[in-house]
Amino acid sequence: MWIEQEIRQQPEVAARLIREGWEEARWIIEETRRFQPALAMLAARGSSDNAARYGQYLLGAFAGLPTALATPSLFTFYRRPPRLDRTWVIGISQSGRSPDIVGVVEEARRQGGWTLAITNDLSSPLASAAHVVLPLRAGEERAVAATKTYTAQLIALALLAAAWTEDATMREDLLQLPEAIAQALGTEAAAREAAAAWWRAVHGVVIGRGFNYATAFEVALKLKELTYIVAEPYSSADFRHGPVALVEPGFPVFLIAPGATFRTEMESLAHMLREREAHLTLCSEDPGLLALAEVGIPLPPVPEWLSPVVAVIPGQWFAVSLARLKGLDPDQPRGLRKITETR
Amino acid sequence: MWIEQEIRQQPEVAARLIREGWEEARWIIEETRRFQPALAMLAARGSSDNAARYGQYLLGAFAGLPTALATPSLFTFYRRPPRLDRTWVIGISQSGRSPDIVGVVEEARRQGGWTLAITNDLSSPLASAAHVVLPLRAGEERAVAATKTYTAQLIALALLAAAWTEDATMREDLLQLPEAIAQALGTEAAAREAAAAWWRAVHGVVIGRGFNYATAFEVALKLKELTYIVAEPYSSADFRHGPVALVEPGFPVFLIAPGATFRTEMESLAHMLREREAHLTLCSEDPGLLALAEVGIPLPPVPEWLSPVVAVIPGQWFAVSLARLKGLDPDQPRGLRKITETR
Repeated sequence: MWIEQEIRQQPEVAARLIREGWEEARWIIEETRRFQPALAMLAARGSSDNAARYGQYLLGAFAGLPTALATPSLFTFYRRPPRLDRTWVIGISQSGRSPDIVGVVEEARRQGGWTLAITNDLSSPLASAAHVVLPLRAGEERAVAATKTYTAQLIALALLAAAWTEDATMREDLLQLPEAIAQALGTEAAAREAAAAWWRAVHGVVIGRGFNYATAFEVALKLKELTYIVAEPYSSADFRHGPVALVEPGFPVFLIAPGATFRTEMESLAHMLREREAHLTLCSEDPGLLALAEVGIPLPPVPEWLSPVVAVIPGQWFAVSLARLKGLDPDQPRGLRKITETR
Repeated sequence: MWIEQEIRQQPEVAARLIREGWEEARWIIEETRRFQPALAMLAARGSSDNAARYGQYLLGAFAGLPTALATPSLFTFYRRPPRLDRTWVIGISQSGRSPDIVGVVEEARRQGGWTLAITNDLSSPLASAAHVVLPLRAGEERAVAATKTYTAQLIALALLAAAWTEDATMREDLLQLPEAIAQALGTEAAAREAAAAWWRAVHGVVIGRGFNYATAFEVALKLKELTYIVAEPYSSADFRHGPVALVEPGFPVFLIAPGATFRTEMESLAHMLREREAHLTLCSEDPGLLALAEVGIPLPPVPEWLSPVVAVIPGQWFAVSLARLKGLDPDQPRGLRKITETR
């Protein structure tokens, strides 16, 4: 039962990182501003790559930096890395041991770029490779599927964004986040109810947008890792450009819809999905949106820029509950190990 | 039968674009170099976004530019666009009419960035918004699912890469491409055989890497649009970081494996998939790799950087054949229109 324990540790892990990581984040941002990056590049795999996707939106919105997700094979297989001397390269890895991610950071540093590692292991090759490290302080993660280290990675990126803006309300927002995460743990029962309705599903889609595009990727990955459901993540816009053709009566859709920005977009999508008789599960703090779903999972209200940290939690419960219903062991997904080494 | 016609038009569309677009591409690159971009950013949706993914690798490898895929919602919904005054922004859209893509290009131009439109419609809002246009010259595309405009977009990006390097062999490679595309049309029978084996599939994965990461996305999208199979695209590296848990006996995998760079990687993946008794369809020019698959689709050999233009063609045939086998009309996927307008 490691994974349930680690899910429940998230408020405490968040509180520690927000408390202890703030001054480090401020110092890292001071050094980063001195470097004057023209852009940021995030290098990661798996759950960490989903966290990187949140970072892409955060750094664009709050640091004004155009931000790329790295293409590691240009560095490793093709040996044709792009020019990175004006780039802030951030490697994100729980273990700090994926050779391709270490390779991107090493190359950036060799070229004169500015590099940061976000990792749970200060003694890892990734931590050694980068100029500076922001450690996750999440404690050992024993379940193969990441939960507490994923939300810790989101928070590490949020600390950097808040430090960049020097906006005191963002710092305040962060200080209140652990309490909201604790409330979100209370979605367990609703998530279990939602899981019961997906019991026979063999595939489905998970949709989120903006900051929560990352959440869609992470919930879909948890479903694949723990329940072997072929769950594909989409932004609501990309979904309309083709994949919407998949929807037939009963087709399972998990819609992540916190915040006011996408209220109308998500409402219009929910109506369209209902017309096509999709089976709709929806996470939101908005009662009007929740009423449109077959199963609504109420989220605690948080400032929208931090909503991915909270919105992923019912998705974690959902995947774990569904695994249990199917008689699968969520601590030991078939064919996976905790550390995956790819080139 | 528009889609079959449009698939067959690809050698001719390619030849026209390579012939008529070369001087334009050279002139565009001359102007782009004058701008001295610190990075490139590609904005697109649907099939065009898959072409953009090829562009991300091409511009990194051959122009040395760190390259981001745009996050349109930062521009439209959040109204917090990143700083783009040092960025070469490329909007890619067959119709040139998706408001979010036009919005990214307009904002970049307003900020002093340098902008290019790659579109099939010179009179579109996207063409008007950008400083310069590279028209696809593909003729009207009547099937809802893109085929000839997708390969034309790949070629437009390849022309830009070749013009950037000023490498005469790349120009030569391009001139021989239409002949290779014509040969690839001959994969129709093998693709039909592969489709017959997927007849009962309700989901599956499509795997490619490096330049052909884009091909995996495009083949998966064709399957979703035309056959309603939940087909998810992966790089071989990302697939190992979690989703490999999906593989059980009979699980359908479509592996796109041209070129020498990933020969060993793809061989190791194919062996692993066979051990887990996946149903493996594989496209390659390598007889050793082809022998590892349940159904092998031989590709004509082409220089690896251009292989995505050729490797997607059996995927197009595969999706069309499978739609026909299922009694579906590949010209009119349910719930889709030719032009999707998203914000």
